[in-house]
Parts: sequence; C-alpha cells; structure tokens
Amino acid sequence: MSVRLNKRSGGREARRVSRQTNIEQIIPFIERKIPYYELLDEAGLELIERNADTVLEQIGLDFKDFPQALDLFSAAGADVQGDRVRFPPGMCRSIIQNSAPAEYVQHARNPERNVIIGGNRTVLAPAYGSPFVRGLDGVRRYATLNDFQDLVKLTYMSPGLHHSGGTVCEPVDVPVNKRHFDMVYSHIKLSDKPFMGSVTSAERAQDTVDMVELVFGKEFIQTHTVLTSLINVNSPLTFDATMLGAATVYASNNQATIISPFILAGAMSPVTVAGTVTQILAEALAGMAYIQLVRPGAPVIFGTFAAAVSMQSGAPTFGTPEPSKIMYLTASLARRLGVPFRSGGSLCGSKIADAQAAYESANTLQAGALCGVNFMLHTAGWLEGGLTVGFEKFIMDVDQANMLQVLLQGVDLSETGQALDALHEVGPGSHFLGASHTQANFETAFYRSTIADNNSFEQWQQEGGKDAGARANAICRKMLDSYVAPPLDAAVDEALIDLMVRRKALSEDRSY
Amino acid sequence: MSVRLNKRSGGREARRVSRQTNIEQIIPFIERKIPYYELLDEAGLELIERNADTVLEQIGLDFKDFPQALDLFSAAGADVQGDRVRFPPGMCRSIIQNSAPAEYVQHARNPERNVIIGGNRTVLAPAYGSPFVRGLDGVRRYATLNDFQDLVKLTYMSPGLHHSGGTVCEPVDVPVNKRHFDMVYSHIKLSDKPFMGSVTSAERAQDTVDMVELVFGKEFIQTHTVLTSLINVNSPLTFDATMLGAATVYASNNQATIISPFILAGAMSPVTVAGTVTQILAEALAGMAYIQLVRPGAPVIFGTFAAAVSMQSGAPTFGTPEPSKIMYLTASLARRLGVPFRSGGSLCGSKIADAQAAYESANTLQAGALCGVNFMLHTAGWLEGGLTVGFEKFIMDVDQANMLQVLLQGVDLSETGQALDALHEVGPGSHFLGASHTQANFETAFYRSTIADNNSFEQWQQEGGKDAGARANAICRKMLDSYVAPPLDAAVDEALIDLMVRRKALSEDRSY
Repeated sequence: MSVRLNKRSGGREARRVSRQTNIEQIIPFIERKIPYYELLDEAGLELIERNADTVLEQIGLDFKDFPQALDLFSAAGADVQGDRVRFPPGMCRSIIQNSAPAEYVQHARNPERNVIIGGNRTVLAPAYGSPFVRGLDGVRRYATLNDFQDLVKLTYMSPGLHHSGGTVCEPVDVPVNKRHFDMVYSHIKLSDKPFMGSVTSAERAQDTVDMVELVFGKEFIQTHTVLTSLINVNSPLTFDATMLGAATVYASNNQATIISPFILAGAMSPVTVAGTVTQILAEALAGMAYIQLVRPGAPVIFGTFAAAVSMQSGAPTFGTPEPSKIMYLTASLARRLGVPFRSGGSLCGSKIADAQAAYESANTLQAGALCGVNFMLHTAGWLEGGLTVGFEKFIMDVDQANMLQVLLQGVDLSETGQALDALHEVGPGSHFLGASHTQANFETAFYRSTIADNNSFEQWQQEGGKDAGARANAICRKMLDSYVAPPLDAAVDEALIDLMVRRKALSEDRSY
Repeated sequence: MSVRLNKRSGGREARRVSRQTNIEQIIPFIERKIPYYELLDEAGLELIERNADTVLEQIGLDFKDFPQALDLFSAAGADVQGDRVRFPPGMCRSIIQNSAPAEYVQHARNPERNVIIGGNRTVLAPAYGSPFVRGLDGVRRYATLNDFQDLVKLTYMSPGLHHSGGTVCEPVDVPVNKRHFDMVYSHIKLSDKPFMGSVTSAERAQDTVDMVELVFGKEFIQTHTVLTSLINVNSPLTFDATMLGAATVYASNNQATIISPFILAGAMSPVTVAGTVTQILAEALAGMAYIQLVRPGAPVIFGTFAAAVSMQSGAPTFGTPEPSKIMYLTASLARRLGVPFRSGGSLCGSKIADAQAAYESANTLQAGALCGVNFMLHTAGWLEGGLTVGFEKFIMDVDQANMLQVLLQGVDLSETGQALDALHEVGPGSHFLGASHTQANFETAFYRSTIADNNSFEQWQQEGGKDAGARANAICRKMLDSYVAPPLDAAVDEALIDLMVRRKALSEDRSY
C-alpha cells in the first residue's frame, strides 16, 4: 500500500497567501543563495573542537541504563566503565564522517512536499512540545487534540512552513500512552507535509514506524526516510534510556533523528558561550556516533537548543546575544563535520504576543537564517519559553518565515534586477511608479507582509486602531474556516484507524 | 572659552542600568570584534560599482540652483549642462579616495564621550525627525520642545546610545526658523554626548557652527570635528540647494556630513534591490565627492536610508528582506570605498509599540549590526515610518541597542571563556549553578534585558500581566524622574543663551 500522488495539494488558501505575500511560488523547501555568517574564524572553531575532544576523552558521557549503547561503544573502541563512556580523540567524528549523510530526503505522502534536509537547504517547521495554548479567545489553557489538529491545519496552509513538525502541542485531553497515535494520525490525515515521530518511548517510536509503513509501504521506509524525530540530550553529558530507546528504533528503521542538546546555559552548561558550545559539540558528537553505530548511514542531524539562564531568577531567556552566538558557532561546527544542522525558531520568553515576544523571536529567526540552519523547529507559535504555543503568534511568525525565504533568495543580478533601463527611463527628479520596468516587475518586487499595517495613522485609526495580534487573530480564524483536507487514500486511512483502535485497546489509559 | 572636563559624567542612572544589563562597562562607542556579513561576492559588488559609474556618466545628477557645486564639479572635470552634472568613470571615487578620511573622531564636550566613526566602530544614536510623539500617556500628538528635551535626557542616560542625535523630534511649539537654536542648545545643556547640527538651511547650519564655537573654541573646530549632520539626497539623483547649502557650511568648517540617499524603493528608485543599490551608490558618490571638493579631508559618511514601497498602497514598509539586502550591499560598498557607513535603526511602520513594531525593528537592527553600520541613526524610538517617536518604544529599543553591543563583542576564547574547568568540575548529570566557575562569572555572564519578563506565567499574572510596553513605560518615567544634568561651564551657558536671544530677535517667527 503506498500513497497516491496528489497534484492538487496545498490548498487554495495557501496559494492565495502566496500570491498576497509575493513569495514567488510555493516551494517545498528553501534553497539558500546567500553566504553563511561565520562568527568565529577557523582557529577559534578548531580550539572548540579540540576542547570537545578533551571532554569526550577525559570526562565522557553517561548513557544511562541502556546496555546496547555501552556495548556498541565498547566494541567501537571507547572506554566504558559503568554507564560512563569515554572516547579516544577523534573517534566520534570519524564514525560520523564514515557513514552519516551530509543531506537526505525526507519523503512526504505527497511527493511534491518532499524536503531535502542538509547542504544549502532550509526547512521550516512549527513549534514543538507546548502543554499550553493561547487560543484565539486570548485565554491560556491546556492544549487539546483539537488544538493540535488546528495547528497541523494552519501549518499545512502556510507556504512558509515546509514541514508539519511533531508534537505541535501536547494534547492533554488524550491519555499520554495513547496520544501519539492521534498525533501521528493527525499529521497524516490533515496534512501532506513531512512530519516527526513520537520519542517518548521505544514502543511509541515503533508505533510511529508501524503507522508510516501503512502509508508508505514496509519496503519503502527501509530505503527511504519518512520521519525526522527529535532526540533531546539530558545535558550535561547524559543520554537517558527513553530517548535512546526511541532513537534506536528510528535509526534501526533508517529514519532520521535530531541529536539535540537541550541547554539552559549557566545551569545545564558552563556560563560562557565557548564553554557551552564545547559541551554541545561533545554531546552531539557522542549521540550522532551512537546513531551511526546502530545503523551506518541512518540520517542524523546535529541539533542545538540553547537559552541563557538568568543568574538572578533562574528563568531561561531568549533572543539575547549569547544564544545567538551559540547558534552561529554550532552551525559552523556542524558544517565542518558535514552533517545537517537544527536550531533557531521563534524562541521567546514572553507570555503574550507582544513586543518582547517579537524582538526575541526576530533576533532568533534572523540568526537562524544567517547561520545556516537546515531544519528549523519552533519556527512559528512559540511563547513563554515553549510552555505555550499561541495561535496569533503562530500567524505572525509564519509571516517572518515567509520573509526568511525571501532573504535567503539573495540578490537578483539579472538585467531586470540591475534595472539600468529604469534608471535611464526615469532620470533625476522624477519617480519610478509609472516606469515600464516598475510596471513589469512590481507584482513580485517586494515582500508583502500578511500582518503589518503600513497605512496612514488616520486610516489605521479609522479601521479600529488594531495591533498586530488582532490582525493575526482575524487571519487565523479565516484560515481555519477555509481549511480543506488533502485527499488521503481511503484504504490507507482505514488501515491507520484500525491500527490505532487495536493498539489503544491493548492497554489502560495512562498519564505517563 | 572651552569646555571643562567632566569626570563624573554619565549619571548614576546610566551606571545603574549598565550594572543591571551586564553591559560590561559604559563605553563611548562599540569596537566590533566580529566579522561583517557580506551578502554579495566581489563580482556582484563590482557589477554594481560599474553600473553606478554608468549612471554617473550617462544619466548624471541634478544639483539644483546651487552654482557653487556646478562650478566645483566643472573645474574638477565633470560635464555640466544646466543643473545636470555627468561624471567621467571613476571621477567621484577618485576624489573621495584622495581625501576623505576612513574614520574620524567626533568630539563631545565631555572628552570621555568622544566617538570614533568609521573602521570597526559602531556608534548608536536615537531616532531623528519625527513631528509626532507617542507619549507615556499613550497619546499620539505633535512633539514639543519639552518632548525633545526628554528624549535628549533619556539618550544621555542610556549607556547603549553613544550619540545624542539631532532632531530627536520636531518641536512644533517653537517657530521653525528659531527652533534649531533650542535643539542645539538642549543637546549641549542636557547631555554631554556628541550631537548633530541643523540642516534645514545654510543659515541654520551656520548658527549651529557658531554655537559649537562657543563650546569648543573657534580654532578647535577648524581642526576637530564636533558635529555630524544629516544631508538627505532628493532621490532620484537630485541634490537641492537647501541641503547643499547646509552641507557646504559644515564641510567648510571641517564638520562631518552624512550624504544619505533617502529611498522609498519602487517610488524613488527602481523596484529591485540591485537597481536601488546602484542608484544609492551613484548618489552617495556624487555627494561625497562634492564635500571633498568643498574642503578636502572634511569627514563624510556614506549614508543609506531605504524602505520598500508597497506597490499596492504606496505606503513605505520596513523590516522586510529587501531593505535589509539593500543595507548589506551598501555597507559592503562603503567599506570598499573606504568611508564610514550610516544606516540601520529601529525602523518600523507600526503606529504603536506592538509585535509588528518589534519584528520590524529587530530585523533592521540585526542587519545593521551584522552589515557593519558605523553610525546608526534611528536606533531608538521609531514608530510609524518615522512620523512618530514613541517613548515606550524608545526604552525597548535601547534594550536592543545594549544587546547589539554584546553581540558585536564576539566570543570570549580565554581560559575562562573556554570553561573546561567548569566541565571537569560538574561532569555528567549534575548542574552548573553551584560550580565555582559559574559563581566567579555569573554576574557578567549573560545579557540581562531591561524589558523582558521571563518569570513564570503565574508570577507574571500576579504582577498584573503587563506587556512589554507597560514595563517600558514604568522604566521611562523612573529615568526621567531621576535625571541629573551634566555640569556645564556657566560662562559657556551664558554665551549660548546670549547668542540665541540675539539671533532669535533678528527675525519674525516663521513656520518654514
């Protein structure tokens, strides 16, 4: 059983938005045409690489309660004592560079939505992991499956987002040991973009794999990657059995994992940029090497999530310079290693979609675009350090995501781009509005924000003096009202529902 | 008569803010320690330079009603017909590179506040030119001299701003032909940071020069620069007599000018990035060459202000990718030419300090920092395309300005920065909060925002659920309440007031 090609995917709303915003076309992912920003020179990066090797050799990492990792590392030449694994200099790097792909295709059930992750590509995905939502009624509350589905729909309808993400919110109205079925099913049913699998246990990862087998076929997924899933490191320097279990299932089945140190710098890493990056590199190297030992060639992404902890309150802070610096450095290190890189997003600490949220998100999104993130989780919707996903914020961030696409396109140096004919036509002291070059090119000329109000003060006031949140609210309601699901083969749909019903019936509801 | 050294300048409030935010120290300007972001390669930049030469040679610029410019250009070898001046290829560049300084010191009346403009320095200045303010009462209204003075005070108290700016707002309660006296006097009296002069006529520029002579001494200013003033180009390709008159006064007196094409791209320039940059380069080259012909060696800055015009509504738009690209390219071109560069700022189209304002401002500020702006006008306070300066927005933007300083500091690779001892001390599975490295370094570790609330949702809610604007409002009130003027020599003060009273009495009040 394999997915039917769907040429009409994307939806009218997405095409309408695309026309409105002057995104040139609906593209499955961004192909970068501008240089990377390298914050540090080669000598600085080499110093951090040496220090990471020192950490791997002298301190090592704990792989807690997971004999398979200890055995594989021991066989590969690491020094294993208890759960602690110490690595000879260069060992992890060498294992990774021997087999990890520099880029890979993640297949979607609609082949037009396939993404390439790595190299000069940027793939944008929505927020991940929030137990709360801030709804269109302005109320913060626990997230439900209905919220989850709305976020999948909005992502499907947003040309600026290329990937459906994973736990776009935590649907707390469904038992924890069963909701992964509903989440994976929602991604498949309500969207045709690629998505992520459950990572909260090996069993749930296996359920995810079994579900995608029904969509793509059992043979297909052994040779093709259809899932990219998030494996957080328990920083500092620890991998736990839960995450390792899920990672092992995915890697064994040729599915991609993001090995992602999750760092609140100052608490879970040293209180400096270089020290934190050293630790992140050591953790990512060890985790990615493990994946390659499980199945050489299984796609793996170097992940980084870093906030700075306020040393006064203990609260994580976002959008400040240090997390940006950490992102720039880890992106450079991932490129030197030759693997795809995950970071970035609309990270912010604000509880609401106010100016704080926007400054912080924009600072992180810009750094993510310039440093060369290949897979950007959390691109849209983040609030409150990730505890909440906001619907208005989601719509605002998608506008920024659209802009990243335009930024990464670089500068058109064609004759049309050079516009010498326009300069000759208009000359000094006139204006370009009526020039033939302007008339021929204005429709695709400049990015048009979906959210910004650039009208006069008087007109804005007449129209109610709304802030950006109010405008995003209206857009969001309109999108949800006009959502049309992409077609799904009825037999596939039936098989997925059948699997869910059977598996759910096997166990009691649990809250863990 | 010259200014008295004032060792106690800066104010307690500024030092308090500096401690709170972990800006390492109050510095007079930023010395950049990170690379520039080069959006385009050398071949692309050369293409634009060739095209600008084509524009200068084949189309030329109008220097309206200003025979002095036509005569100087003619004598230097340009083809002058009527007001139109056409330049042989390379002529402007050669004139500039023969005498324009790559960097210069702008002296402040407090030498500790002197700034260096050019090279690897970044000098941040507040918003410029708004006829409206959005006050702390949330009302948008015409600006007054009292607003102007409040903005000068706030700038003086903000360690993140290095320069007092110029027309921080337009005080419409003072006659247009007299308010330049009050503006210049306010900068001198209420602050000890460097500032800008009046440019609305040659006469007002001369009044400004006469006033700074009273502060610095007549001889001093002929060999030292104490003013940096903004000369906008009437794009496309036109300089008018008003701006040329002011520029000529400043250049003749060895004072600095910013030759700044003011571009709403699509209306005043071609509807493409490369075409707009070509025009900007041509305009800036011609204007800077004129300055060097007036007085070889007079400091001159390559300025760029560019927004994109919405081709649907005609409204200018900010914070979108195209203005950022224009800024990256013009920064590269200024570096290649070897002159200081002005651009950037907290540019936005929003009427209020909401998420739109913050996204747009952050996008522009980040690009300004990475492209290598030397003099950043409009760093704080912009709203509504520059029609309004907002007090809450000002405080928010200063927080971002502080962050730019930290970003531009780069990465500490000292042993403390590397933090290997911390990694050894803590090891896997613990935390760094109590580590001796953390204890020794946490106070200066991470930037602390003055505006952001990163507390828990519950705590934030208990404290009133305020947005960033409300917090900025409270900070602004506190700052204005605690302002203390820097000491000013009483004889200087008296002489300034005397000059103002005498000159103001010479003419009727006028509104132009």
